[in-house]
Amino acid sequence: MNFRSDNTAGASEKVLAALIAANQGAQPAYGYDDMTARAEKALCEVFERDVAMFLVTTGTAANSLALSCVTPPWGAVICHAESHVMRDECGAPEFFTHGAKLVGLPGTGCKLSADAVRETLAALPSGAVHSVQPAALTLSQATECGMAYAPSEIAALAEVAHGRGLAVHMDGARFANALATLGCTPAEMSWKAGIDVLSFGATKNGCLAAEAVIFFDKAKAAEMKFRRKRSGHTLSKGRLLAAQMLAYLADGHWLDLARKANAAAAQLEEALASLPGVRMGWPRQANEAFAIIPDGVARQLREAGAAFHPWSADYLSRQSMPGPGETLYRFVCSFRTSPLEIEGLRRAGRGEEAATRRIKVKQ
Amino acid sequence: MNFRSDNTAGASEKVLAALIAANQGAQPAYGYDDMTARAEKALCEVFERDVAMFLVTTGTAANSLALSCVTPPWGAVICHAESHVMRDECGAPEFFTHGAKLVGLPGTGCKLSADAVRETLAALPSGAVHSVQPAALTLSQATECGMAYAPSEIAALAEVAHGRGLAVHMDGARFANALATLGCTPAEMSWKAGIDVLSFGATKNGCLAAEAVIFFDKAKAAEMKFRRKRSGHTLSKGRLLAAQMLAYLADGHWLDLARKANAAAAQLEEALASLPGVRMGWPRQANEAFAIIPDGVARQLREAGAAFHPWSADYLSRQSMPGPGETLYRFVCSFRTSPLEIEGLRRAGRGEEAATRRIKVKQ
Amino acid sequence: MNFRSDNTAGASEKVLAALIAANQGAQPAYGYDDMTARAEKALCEVFERDVAMFLVTTGTAANSLALSCVTPPWGAVICHAESHVMRDECGAPEFFTHGAKLVGLPGTGCKLSADAVRETLAALPSGAVHSVQPAALTLSQATECGMAYAPSEIAALAEVAHGRGLAVHMDGARFANALATLGCTPAEMSWKAGIDVLSFGATKNGCLAAEAVIFFDKAKAAEMKFRRKRSGHTLSKGRLLAAQMLAYLADGHWLDLARKANAAAAQLEEALASLPGVRMGWPRQANEAFAIIPDGVARQLREAGAAFHPWSADYLSRQSMPGPGETLYRFVCSFRTSPLEIEGLRRAGRGEEAATRRIKVKQ
Amino acid sequence: MNFRSDNTAGASEKVLAALIAANQGAQPAYGYDDMTARAEKALCEVFERDVAMFLVTTGTAANSLALSCVTPPWGAVICHAESHVMRDECGAPEFFTHGAKLVGLPGTGCKLSADAVRETLAALPSGAVHSVQPAALTLSQATECGMAYAPSEIAALAEVAHGRGLAVHMDGARFANALATLGCTPAEMSWKAGIDVLSFGATKNGCLAAEAVIFFDKAKAAEMKFRRKRSGHTLSKGRLLAAQMLAYLADGHWLDLARKANAAAAQLEEALASLPGVRMGWPRQANEAFAIIPDGVARQLREAGAAFHPWSADYLSRQSMPGPGETLYRFVCSFRTSPLEIEGLRRAGRGEEAATRRIKVKQ
Repeated sequence: MNFRSDNTAGASEKVLAALIAANQGAQPAYGYDDMTARAEKALCEVFERDVAMFLVTTGTAANSLALSCVTPPWGAVICHAESHVMRDECGAPEFFTHGAKLVGLPGTGCKLSADAVRETLAALPSGAVHSVQPAALTLSQATECGMAYAPSEIAALAEVAHGRGLAVHMDGARFANALATLGCTPAEMSWKAGIDVLSFGATKNGCLAAEAVIFFDKAKAAEMKFRRKRSGHTLSKGRLLAAQMLAYLADGHWLDLARKANAAAAQLEEALASLPGVRMGWPRQANEAFAIIPDGVARQLREAGAAFHPWSADYLSRQSMPGPGETLYRFVCSFRTSPLEIEGLRRAGRGEEAATRRIKVKQ
Repeated sequence: MNFRSDNTAGASEKVLAALIAANQGAQPAYGYDDMTARAEKALCEVFERDVAMFLVTTGTAANSLALSCVTPPWGAVICHAESHVMRDECGAPEFFTHGAKLVGLPGTGCKLSADAVRETLAALPSGAVHSVQPAALTLSQATECGMAYAPSEIAALAEVAHGRGLAVHMDGARFANALATLGCTPAEMSWKAGIDVLSFGATKNGCLAAEAVIFFDKAKAAEMKFRRKRSGHTLSKGRLLAAQMLAYLADGHWLDLARKANAAAAQLEEALASLPGVRMGWPRQANEAFAIIPDGVARQLREAGAAFHPWSADYLSRQSMPGPGETLYRFVCSFRTSPLEIEGLRRAGRGEEAATRRIKVKQ
Repeated sequence: MNFRSDNTAGASEKVLAALIAANQGAQPAYGYDDMTARAEKALCEVFERDVAMFLVTTGTAANSLALSCVTPPWGAVICHAESHVMRDECGAPEFFTHGAKLVGLPGTGCKLSADAVRETLAALPSGAVHSVQPAALTLSQATECGMAYAPSEIAALAEVAHGRGLAVHMDGARFANALATLGCTPAEMSWKAGIDVLSFGATKNGCLAAEAVIFFDKAKAAEMKFRRKRSGHTLSKGRLLAAQMLAYLADGHWLDLARKANAAAAQLEEALASLPGVRMGWPRQANEAFAIIPDGVARQLREAGAAFHPWSADYLSRQSMPGPGETLYRFVCSFRTSPLEIEGLRRAGRGEEAATRRIKVKQ
Repeated sequence: MNFRSDNTAGASEKVLAALIAANQGAQPAYGYDDMTARAEKALCEVFERDVAMFLVTTGTAANSLALSCVTPPWGAVICHAESHVMRDECGAPEFFTHGAKLVGLPGTGCKLSADAVRETLAALPSGAVHSVQPAALTLSQATECGMAYAPSEIAALAEVAHGRGLAVHMDGARFANALATLGCTPAEMSWKAGIDVLSFGATKNGCLAAEAVIFFDKAKAAEMKFRRKRSGHTLSKGRLLAAQMLAYLADGHWLDLARKANAAAAQLEEALASLPGVRMGWPRQANEAFAIIPDGVARQLREAGAAFHPWSADYLSRQSMPGPGETLYRFVCSFRTSPLEIEGLRRAGRGEEAATRRIKVKQ
């Protein structure tokens, strides 16, 4: 009953098998191996476009490296105030960009609105030497509140950004989950909607550590190989990353995993909503459910062995705010979340603790 | 017959098996898992001391993070002119330290001498505002020319460095290979000889991607967790690194692997030295052999399928310099190098190419 | 009728005379001259405490250098959302700190409240590796809206900050103007209220280019000389800065100048408030007046030759917001602003343009 | 008898007078004033070309800002091992470039040779990710040993650099002194010989603090205004810098001052060479004389009140090396150095101390 994050699981069986298979034989070092070349080709196919791809081990590295390729040190990166790049990376984007400024905007469900971006840009005059220069817009898909931008919403944001010469980056740590819920194509959710550079996450959704920075405009990738090496993110045994990515993409495995996690989250949402006094924070769209839970119920869940994190209520809509004795919590499902765990949670919430405990032991 | 590097191989069987075994079950993210705690404990035992350990995926990250914890932006890092931190990391130490200056000294076999360090420090006055401030000494064990510092040599260097208040760092990308050849204990080759912080490499010697930064003085590690996170090197699924490190250390596996690679290099040295017109650049100590080879012989080797890199002759002793028609080459063995490959090289060097080709095919 | 800024004037006569007098004779370079030592001593007297002082040419350099001495690259600097460090220095604090994050808070009149700071700090857990680490609080005295913090308000802010281990910095670009209006001592407005490091501005108030970074805790100044040199802010001919600072401080000249500018602003406030349809944004406290002006009146003023900047209305109290056809403007007085200019403005605002033009010509 | 540096003097009378004259009236801030525009125009005339000019207060800022505009963080800057950027700026170029690597080459008289640059570049392969990427060549005119590159020598260096795509920067802290000795035009000694960006020094030669970064290719200046502001080098009262520069350039004043300093150095060289046991280190070309002096004579000079610095003998030609009991010293003349001071030195060196003392007192 660990709903803390989708990074508490290991790798999927297929990804692991690929790692094992990749272990034999000599391969050129530093990403010049065959598998890395094939992984890039596989992503070109997935995105229906010739792209430049760079594999790294973490989402923080992927986001920061991507942003640093499109933002000068005196640049401003427009993002949501609660975004991962703003709140959860210990200043990594600032480190990699050599001190650019992240400008965080509000927005319900951690979603940016085109209007808010337009207004912010209007207050940051280009060329005026006192002010940092707007350089990039970054949005998370799915957002930190589990919401997915529709392609048309992405396009509206990108249009505003491009209108002022900004590059548009997508933090796709949960790209697969968002895609699975929207049912569009990877291309429609990225470059066709105006995304210039994408952090394509695979770690949370079935790999051990594999993220791809994808440049849809290959010219923007010119500095990337130096930036990656210089930050210690060019693995000598490149097969480790490439083998994971190849297996992840093969035969739609990545989407199968995402659909599994999303389905679990749907079931979880239903279970949570059925508990006494519980209501949902935002509608569940991907693999996360956010619930406002009375303190007593939350205690019951924890005592039964469930693990989950409290979450910031700042970007709830006004009418949904937790009242006294209530707290907003995040529950995350991964491809490994089992119906039994969710059932255990439901029982615990209804005060059928003993049953839950048993389930936990059996795992 | 790939002698290009010890990072062209995959992981050892035991390390791979550990990865597979570690894949099950939920684990706390970001290095707060059980395995990471056990890996730290295992290193404390190996080094007979309470240490602080931080796992990362690359040697470049390990070296740069380690140096950044002991060097301010206006600091100077004393190193060998041909060292990996100086020549092969695309300026990573400068990136992580925010612009410290690496001061490269000459020295035969890529070894620093205490006298050269003393002289250099004398020319860098502490406290004078015009000059960068000496902050750290870093040495590679084994060196980039395959030489190993004896513990007494390390101690002599550390004494000079500590006398001026510098921290002493060891780039131990080939720590195991050096240890295996010297036959001393890990403690004797590190903190007992004055090393303050160590990049303990495991990738080249049997892991896929696993390096530990080890602080023997835990106080020096205070900033490390922020620096690692901020540079994108805190893996969410920490088990990936910890499982490798645990298997690597268990039952002396790491030393078995190093002894195997060293033995192969000894055999390789003998094979190379037996070829017509070939002489060795430096005496072989760890898992690398450096040979000065007539161009005709080198061509023969390559035609037979052998792969190896030319190497800088700058730090040969004066009398060993390559003459006209000769080049210095590096040959590296890993734990996977087979006697057949070496035998194939020997035959190719003697003009028995056909036989070699057959061996290659059989692999 | 230039009310754009207090940096459109040159130096005061006394400061200029000091520069001339200082020009003769040889002096040691790089701040080791007699005058620099005397300037430090003079500031010790002004602040009734043994301080460490570092002269630089700009407020941006002073603020950024000061903050970089108390904030690690992964640190957070709490400031007002409209503060100079946040909005007007092109990311200089990020540059000097190597990427720290400025966290901007709202607050009427650009003043921070202890409650807002407390709340922000509560949301930034110390030691948690995902989050930047709160390191410094910075406040502007007077604020960017011309308000002055009372010593008790400073003390309340500093108490919150110190309670979490943050250093407290004051951007004193208009320190003299705030002091003159409050009538307390320099010590009371700084270290006695909890300020650890102060950017003591002199440029706007009578020098050509002279700012002192003052460390009340000399231990915090240890890195400063390297940081200043490394950023190109250690002047070789240190007398240029020291001579200005000495003349500025001598015989209370600095306070005379500030009182003059403040008095002009008081007169200006009265003039503005007397114009048809004009009301003040915030009560005038130092040398700046902020007025909400009907567009027609503003046009009249400009046509008469008056120069002034529009200003952000974000931190007006809710009831003061400009209505349609109104804009908030800033008017700044310096020690050189003459009663004639203010009288000219008044006349222009009343539609007596011709008279104003004459005044302008006579200047 | 202060021969320590040419920055121990104040400003020339003309420069000081210009500062006084510039003090009246309101001027737009941050370099948008009339005087700054006129200073740029004056430099266009001096250099017979349309240039982009940025005024700063120090040579360290000028050099570092210039290099940062043409060098990425993973770039290499080729320079002399004893150059000011390498040895005397506390790592400022590394700070401003965000960690580029300075590669210091040897060369007699602190002069770079085209061959040494060519060889160094050959060892730094462009595009290979492990290595920093050669980005700029910087040379000092006059060098740190007082030597001047002939335009043809500059052209030869620039040709090698441009052949590999490097930008060429000149540290012209003593540009005027070199020009005066060579007798060519400013254009011939800069862009006509291949210089792309120049630090045009005025501080040492008659200003208090004024250096111009001059871009001969204006496209290379695109980032400069942001870099300057962000590093705190955009003065609010721009007239301070512009007034100095205007007076410095007017009517050839700058060359008059340089000729005066050079003539003093010629006289000084003669005086030094006439002392018992003294020989010159390098032939005097600009305003510095380097002498190898027996310890007894040096003591005599100091006892008589002469001040001068010892200097590194590393870049003397082999046959000139100081023997036992000898030391290499640097003597610098400024536009203010008087014949009386030199005569005093001569007498002191000959043991006529009493006379010297008298002269000193009279000053």
